[in-house]
Amino acid sequence: SVNPDLGSERQTASFSVERLTALLDGGAEQTRIRRAVVDAIESDPVFSRENQYFQTQNERYEAAVRKAVHLQKKMHEMGWTENGPEYKYIYRALSGDVAFLLHRVFMRSISVLGSDKQIAKWIPLATQHKLIGSYAQTELGHGTYLQGLETTAVFDTATQEFILNTPKISAMKWWPGDMGRSATHTVVFAQLYIHGKCYGIHPFIVQIRSLQDHSLCPGVTAGDIGPKMNFEHIDNGYLLLKNVRVPRENMLSKFCEVRPDGTYVRQGSQKINYFTMTTVRISLISDEVLTPLMKACTIAIRYSVVRRQSKLKPGEQEAKILDYQTQQEKLLPQLAAAYAFYFTNDYLQELFNRGYREIQRKNFDMLPELHALSSGFKAVITQHCTAGVEICLRACGGHGYSLLSGLPSLYTKILASCIYEGENTILLLQTARFLIKCFMAASAGQPVPPSVTYLAAVKHGKCSAKNKLDFLSPDIYIEAYQHVAVRLTSNTAAKLQDLIQSGVKKHDAWNQCTVQLVQAAKAHCHYIAVKNFAETVEKLETKAGIQKIMKHLCDLFALHGIFSNTGAFLHDGYTSAAQMDMVTASYLDLLAVIRKDAVPLVDAFDFTDKSLNSALGSYDGHVYQRLYEWAQRSPTNQMSPAYERYLKPLLHNTLSKL
Amino acid sequence: SVNPDLGSERQTASFSVERLTALLDGGAEQTRIRRAVVDAIESDPVFSRENQYFQTQNERYEAAVRKAVHLQKKMHEMGWTENGPEYKYIYRALSGDVAFLLHRVFMRSISVLGSDKQIAKWIPLATQHKLIGSYAQTELGHGTYLQGLETTAVFDTATQEFILNTPKISAMKWWPGDMGRSATHTVVFAQLYIHGKCYGIHPFIVQIRSLQDHSLCPGVTAGDIGPKMNFEHIDNGYLLLKNVRVPRENMLSKFCEVRPDGTYVRQGSQKINYFTMTTVRISLISDEVLTPLMKACTIAIRYSVVRRQSKLKPGEQEAKILDYQTQQEKLLPQLAAAYAFYFTNDYLQELFNRGYREIQRKNFDMLPELHALSSGFKAVITQHCTAGVEICLRACGGHGYSLLSGLPSLYTKILASCIYEGENTILLLQTARFLIKCFMAASAGQPVPPSVTYLAAVKHGKCSAKNKLDFLSPDIYIEAYQHVAVRLTSNTAAKLQDLIQSGVKKHDAWNQCTVQLVQAAKAHCHYIAVKNFAETVEKLETKAGIQKIMKHLCDLFALHGIFSNTGAFLHDGYTSAAQMDMVTASYLDLLAVIRKDAVPLVDAFDFTDKSLNSALGSYDGHVYQRLYEWAQRSPTNQMSPAYERYLKPLLHNTLSKL
Repeated sequence: SVNPDLGSERQTASFSVERLTALLDGGAEQTRIRRAVVDAIESDPVFSRENQYFQTQNERYEAAVRKAVHLQKKMHEMGWTENGPEYKYIYRALSGDVAFLLHRVFMRSISVLGSDKQIAKWIPLATQHKLIGSYAQTELGHGTYLQGLETTAVFDTATQEFILNTPKISAMKWWPGDMGRSATHTVVFAQLYIHGKCYGIHPFIVQIRSLQDHSLCPGVTAGDIGPKMNFEHIDNGYLLLKNVRVPRENMLSKFCEVRPDGTYVRQGSQKINYFTMTTVRISLISDEVLTPLMKACTIAIRYSVVRRQSKLKPGEQEAKILDYQTQQEKLLPQLAAAYAFYFTNDYLQELFNRGYREIQRKNFDMLPELHALSSGFKAVITQHCTAGVEICLRACGGHGYSLLSGLPSLYTKILASCIYEGENTILLLQTARFLIKCFMAASAGQPVPPSVTYLAAVKHGKCSAKNKLDFLSPDIYIEAYQHVAVRLTSNTAAKLQDLIQSGVKKHDAWNQCTVQLVQAAKAHCHYIAVKNFAETVEKLETKAGIQKIMKHLCDLFALHGIFSNTGAFLHDGYTSAAQMDMVTASYLDLLAVIRKDAVPLVDAFDFTDKSLNSALGSYDGHVYQRLYEWAQRSPTNQMSPAYERYLKPLLHNTLSKL
Repeated sequence: SVNPDLGSERQTASFSVERLTALLDGGAEQTRIRRAVVDAIESDPVFSRENQYFQTQNERYEAAVRKAVHLQKKMHEMGWTENGPEYKYIYRALSGDVAFLLHRVFMRSISVLGSDKQIAKWIPLATQHKLIGSYAQTELGHGTYLQGLETTAVFDTATQEFILNTPKISAMKWWPGDMGRSATHTVVFAQLYIHGKCYGIHPFIVQIRSLQDHSLCPGVTAGDIGPKMNFEHIDNGYLLLKNVRVPRENMLSKFCEVRPDGTYVRQGSQKINYFTMTTVRISLISDEVLTPLMKACTIAIRYSVVRRQSKLKPGEQEAKILDYQTQQEKLLPQLAAAYAFYFTNDYLQELFNRGYREIQRKNFDMLPELHALSSGFKAVITQHCTAGVEICLRACGGHGYSLLSGLPSLYTKILASCIYEGENTILLLQTARFLIKCFMAASAGQPVPPSVTYLAAVKHGKCSAKNKLDFLSPDIYIEAYQHVAVRLTSNTAAKLQDLIQSGVKKHDAWNQCTVQLVQAAKAHCHYIAVKNFAETVEKLETKAGIQKIMKHLCDLFALHGIFSNTGAFLHDGYTSAAQMDMVTASYLDLLAVIRKDAVPLVDAFDFTDKSLNSALGSYDGHVYQRLYEWAQRSPTNQMSPAYERYLKPLLHNTLSKL
């Protein structure tokens, strides 16, 4: 039986939930396949996450390894393969709660950076799990700036080996997943030295643990880096190498080779490396960033129609908290953002696929644009979604703060996405560098990539909206976003030029503009996200109410962005104060409209109760019952030695004897 | 030995760190007393937090109880009393990591709500720890809206007892600290029924556990609510009552009494209850909100001068990350906010003390203003500081995400302050209600409390700044803040009036204005914080560079607030676009100025390494060494059964047999 306060929300849906689900999945057939995978995983007790919130870091790690091993069996049983249509749903169905993710990165790095001979040797071993791989790039003292890595690999012509060393503590490898306790091998990035000359960073396959008894290999010190805000199931590790020797063949040599006499040979194009980073940044958006926000919205919105608090009208029953404007203003923009970025992700995927086809034809022209967009959107989407999950958590009051709500673990996990695979500020500055370059080129009449052609069309017009309804017109708000993006880019370009002309050195000038460059990069991405959402809505089927509700969400996403950043639009008078008041009015009106469909809109995400793993967000809305049942299972309800040791003596009034 | 990258930062301080510490403490004598308390606590191994990040919830609880019991002994030994000058430093020195905090609330509620006879009976029992008290107000289904509580207390004239019941699951008490496992008694808030008539919420002392063996009393079900985002050391509990009888004397009866025949008598003024909430909200700001932000700033800023990443100038050594403008823009405004709110707290304390003196003279006139300011600032400061701690965490990249940095636990703990003691949005709306009322009164020429007299002086002028240096004049920015606060309040008041005049019912009209009311309340508090900071700086001694550096911080706090919310200042043209560019220029200039003193400014907070409990923030700056040492102690570096159970069979190629 469904809690009537939740049930009633579903009876008035303005659209078909099932059709929207199919739209998000990319077709009803995809929905069917996804649900089959979810069913198979969730009905298997080995994959259960039931006790997750009660487990220690050690227990989480052990469970993740058990699941990873069991998954091999499961895939075999179910006939799922790495190239099959089910594959992409497996990780999501497990909520990422599984070990050996770095084993995949190990394999991918060999595939991308290894010679044919190396691939032929190592990939079968990895595929059959005759070894467990990891990927050791980041060091205790070095992250994003790869040239700064300090681990060394010195070529010894006499023995035809590389000698790997950690010269000082900041050079220790730190963070690699699966390396703390599981991995037997890893790809170590180190500064290559031949005959005393440094050739920069290169990757080496290094065995770190015995395949017989898992003991550390000679010269290797490794372990787990300890507790983190989340990812308790992953053994992020450290690694210290002391004169560890690996054969010459262990340097991954698709692009660079060291000949037996020590001759260094560079071959092929390294541009593909950029593409690898692009791949990773785009691929993480869906499972690691959008899914948590969609789950958080589902939990917070369902809870907000079940939770009643205070009275909206005197004499009536206490009101559902979602009926308060302030609660709507917290949650509904996050819901709109989830949809907006879902479609942005489609856009990036498509762009990526096009880029991939071009690259296979040895055409690397799209790389700079792809790099700029994937960097910028990685930063903007992770930042926006992380903030969104936090808002959902806080909007659930005290119960959101309980781990049993599921919200704290969503938050602490998504937060990491702002840091890994490129720290966000650094990524935004890469996007900004691309923007400035393109702006200069466009100003000089040179051709620029499609996503930035708008920079050439600097308009000094004003927003043409006459009343609040005009702000529900995509043309109006898209142009406003475009205007702001152009203004921020061109103004910062001008500041940069001025500084340089006034004698400030180029790198200092750049540093003095970085706060504003970050703003420009964000505005660019926001503009593209709004434009893409509007274009997506345009193309949707008009049946079953889908287009209409998506249009509302698109409007909300756009107007929320203006409402929460009014200064950018008001600055040069593009938008007047009167127009800004219209934006506010339309924005607040939209909240009340979308509130009616809020529950169906999260139902369409189609999360099962097991995947939400939340006492607040279940489909049936029996929140209080579930909180109580779950709490009773907590280990904190077992006997504690604290009573006999401390409380009893205290209460039995032996205080004076203490 | 201090890391030279950190040491060099201290050699160029523009002011005396020791003098600033004394200023913050309220005099050198206070500094001496505080340090003596910190020394005594930190040198006692029972109070150690060394293994905190490795402990389970059960271990944390046990340690907190042990510390609470040991603290009694320690206080006795040291000669510290509850009224002595050391007392206020004890909790801070323990970093709040101690049990029985609700025992104090239990005592305070009896002191405030109990009759003289009740105080005489219960307070000595509590003081001598012959019982352990808790405070059971919040229910599973009810928080801020006290009238909605569902627990019942029915008076039985026959036996002269109250019969307490939890009529349904949402009425279960939920969250009270110390109640899950420790408390023997609690103050239960319940709806009082006499002869079938409801008299509303009243407090009852209820015994829940045996004083002999700690077993639950008949009719009582109680336990721990399970894992939370933080506060693992506290046994937040649940409580279910089934026909639990307490004698008539157990209803706290300073204000209301039930006579033996069931006659209900109300006596005295309940206004003092408002004052209790005010007390709590103001008292939590210092230890629970400011201290975590000050610690986070200390950790992040020290780390940012030790961490080097990428090159600022070609050919040079990698740069300290604090030399990047974007890193300064993250951290330095948080540092300025910490100082700003530190002085706001002084302002509130002073106001509170004045109010307290008035109330003792039965003058309740200051209550509405005190209530509005304490509610608004509780919300604004908790929100600002929580966001600030998160920014510090993220600014430390991957290492900030490790629990060993200390930042995750600061964040997950401070986050709760946005929720407890009044959810922030609800509190801001209470402030807004006061503002609207005062605005109406002021417009009608009636007198209003001092903090809101400015609302009467609606000016339609424009900002008079002519160049970027003008924005370093407090008069200029204080007036800008005042202008915005007045505009937001008056505009929302007008909208409210318009809606009501157009026929919208009063409560609906209010709800439709709440998003904007919240903005007005925030603007009011922000204005007062800026004004108070500037006035504080004005009064500071000009010696030893103190006033000068504080002036810089005040400017930064003010300009950061404008820079991050430009729309509010641009909206009606009070500030022009050209002036906003001056703000930006001055703001960015200030970052570079304050950066030079960043380390001395956090040193002045005078946190010991033990109190920071952070591998990143120690005074000597040996970050990497400490991270490595701490990680080696993690329980995740003990043998895991995962190898024998899962990894060994997998690696020994028994995959086919799985």
